[in-house]
Amino acid sequence: MAIYVQLRIDANQRRRVTEVVAGETVHFAEASEAGGAPEALFESRIVFGNPPADWLGAAPALEWVQLESVGFGEYAELLKGPFGRRVRVCNLADFFGQPVAETALAGILALRRRVPELVRLKDAGTWASEGIRPGMTMVHGAHVVLFGRGSIALRLQALLEPFGCSFRAFGSDWQAAALDTALAEADIVAAAAPHTPLTAGVFDRARIGQMRPEATFVNVGRGSLVDEDALADALEAGRLGGAVLDVTREEPLPAGHRFWTCPRLLLTQHTGGGSTDETDRKIAHFARNLARFRAGETPLGLVDPARGY
Amino acid sequence: MAIYVQLRIDANQRRRVTEVVAGETVHFAEASEAGGAPEALFESRIVFGNPPADWLGAAPALEWVQLESVGFGEYAELLKGPFGRRVRVCNLADFFGQPVAETALAGILALRRRVPELVRLKDAGTWASEGIRPGMTMVHGAHVVLFGRGSIALRLQALLEPFGCSFRAFGSDWQAAALDTALAEADIVAAAAPHTPLTAGVFDRARIGQMRPEATFVNVGRGSLVDEDALADALEAGRLGGAVLDVTREEPLPAGHRFWTCPRLLLTQHTGGGSTDETDRKIAHFARNLARFRAGETPLGLVDPARGY
Repeated sequence: MAIYVQLRIDANQRRRVTEVVAGETVHFAEASEAGGAPEALFESRIVFGNPPADWLGAAPALEWVQLESVGFGEYAELLKGPFGRRVRVCNLADFFGQPVAETALAGILALRRRVPELVRLKDAGTWASEGIRPGMTMVHGAHVVLFGRGSIALRLQALLEPFGCSFRAFGSDWQAAALDTALAEADIVAAAAPHTPLTAGVFDRARIGQMRPEATFVNVGRGSLVDEDALADALEAGRLGGAVLDVTREEPLPAGHRFWTCPRLLLTQHTGGGSTDETDRKIAHFARNLARFRAGETPLGLVDPARGY
Repeated sequence: MAIYVQLRIDANQRRRVTEVVAGETVHFAEASEAGGAPEALFESRIVFGNPPADWLGAAPALEWVQLESVGFGEYAELLKGPFGRRVRVCNLADFFGQPVAETALAGILALRRRVPELVRLKDAGTWASEGIRPGMTMVHGAHVVLFGRGSIALRLQALLEPFGCSFRAFGSDWQAAALDTALAEADIVAAAAPHTPLTAGVFDRARIGQMRPEATFVNVGRGSLVDEDALADALEAGRLGGAVLDVTREEPLPAGHRFWTCPRLLLTQHTGGGSTDETDRKIAHFARNLARFRAGETPLGLVDPARGY
């Protein structure tokens, strides 16, 4: 069975993939490929990576797709059709828990210990120690709301435990009244949920208005969870302590978007899942899942298009 | 007994101090005071705050000084003389463990998750997600060297525990060979030790040279621990992953100092101990220690000038 790999990888990593598939034909996508689906896809039973949705739809022999992402919004339409019943598609659920939780905590601590201002002060060659020190806040003892109960939220909670925080976590069964009450008492609100019909727009203008003026808001889930204009209004008016956004509704964030100039907003530009060993870890995951697929077991991370994750 | 208070405090905090001392005379230093010691000091048995050393030396009735800092270098000479045998001086040992550990972790995570670059990218309105994501490193599983075994080092270790780090801690009985070995294997090196004859200059050119090129160096102890030129050389030459400095040999950092332009260096400008409730917490600590002093008990944080902390 041929395997089609569409991943940014170096020569060593190509060798590693070739070893992993043990003698079977591997087609590596060329960086220059554009236009229609390459011929190699037509004979491939397995795809590793994220080719365009219409390419996948045009590949008749496909049985299994191992995406290199958690999100699979670009394949949502495809999965609703016959493709979804014929081909198993797996995402990297749980793969990004640790790096994204580290970026979330980096952002929370950066805002509360005023790292962005300290960076700008250094660039300006300005010493302002006594001026900003009284405005430092601590994470210690914070009331934390976690919106999401997946691997990122669990890891973030684990990282926050030694700060003596208290936690309220909301999963897919979240209730509006309980969430509203928790938001009004929270020092830190962290959204780490996928885009689903149950999560889209949950952080609307009313809920953003309920948060405390000192609160830190974090979104490492999906941009669609948040009313971006309402968030920008709250930050600009000083009605929210700060925000860390790894995701936005449109990425790259368009030129002229209000977020570029919002105060106390840290944009981590969808780098939260990154790590120097990211591709190596992805290959290792593919190897484990390929073994399951070959053994006739259900591969890890099988997505449910109806549920949205 | 009169009490002399030299602290930046607001009207509410003055009221709180007046309540704490319960009916005794309190003199609050005026912001405009300069020149010689104010008369109020001559009749004071207790000082709360950090007046100039020569003022303290000229106060004949003093029995107890509660400093509002951990460091007491500016009183070192005074304490060597008869003053040191006559007056008990307490610092705020353990007071800053949590806020300084939070700033240390904020800095470590900021460098490894590339927050300074993300701040600058936002200010420039530039999306560079894919460009910087592969350079992200994690704290997860890091080998950590802690130089210091005081409250800051203990808190930092506690905050790093859920990252699955391993730890080597060096106290005042540190041995050069063991430290050298540990430094060569460390991903994170955090100095959180006071200035003493045993710690001054410990991070010299040779030891900075032993650290791994990906390592993150942190100094939240005292500036005198570090050869600053050697550290600047290592950062500029790319022989060190990054550095977080809350303290420098000279503060404010002089204009033209190499640190202002060093790459991958986060200067937190001695704000690590800061928090919005810092002064309230100091007053609460003073109240507890005053009760001990009045009861004839040894007050907390009595400094030992010979030991240096």
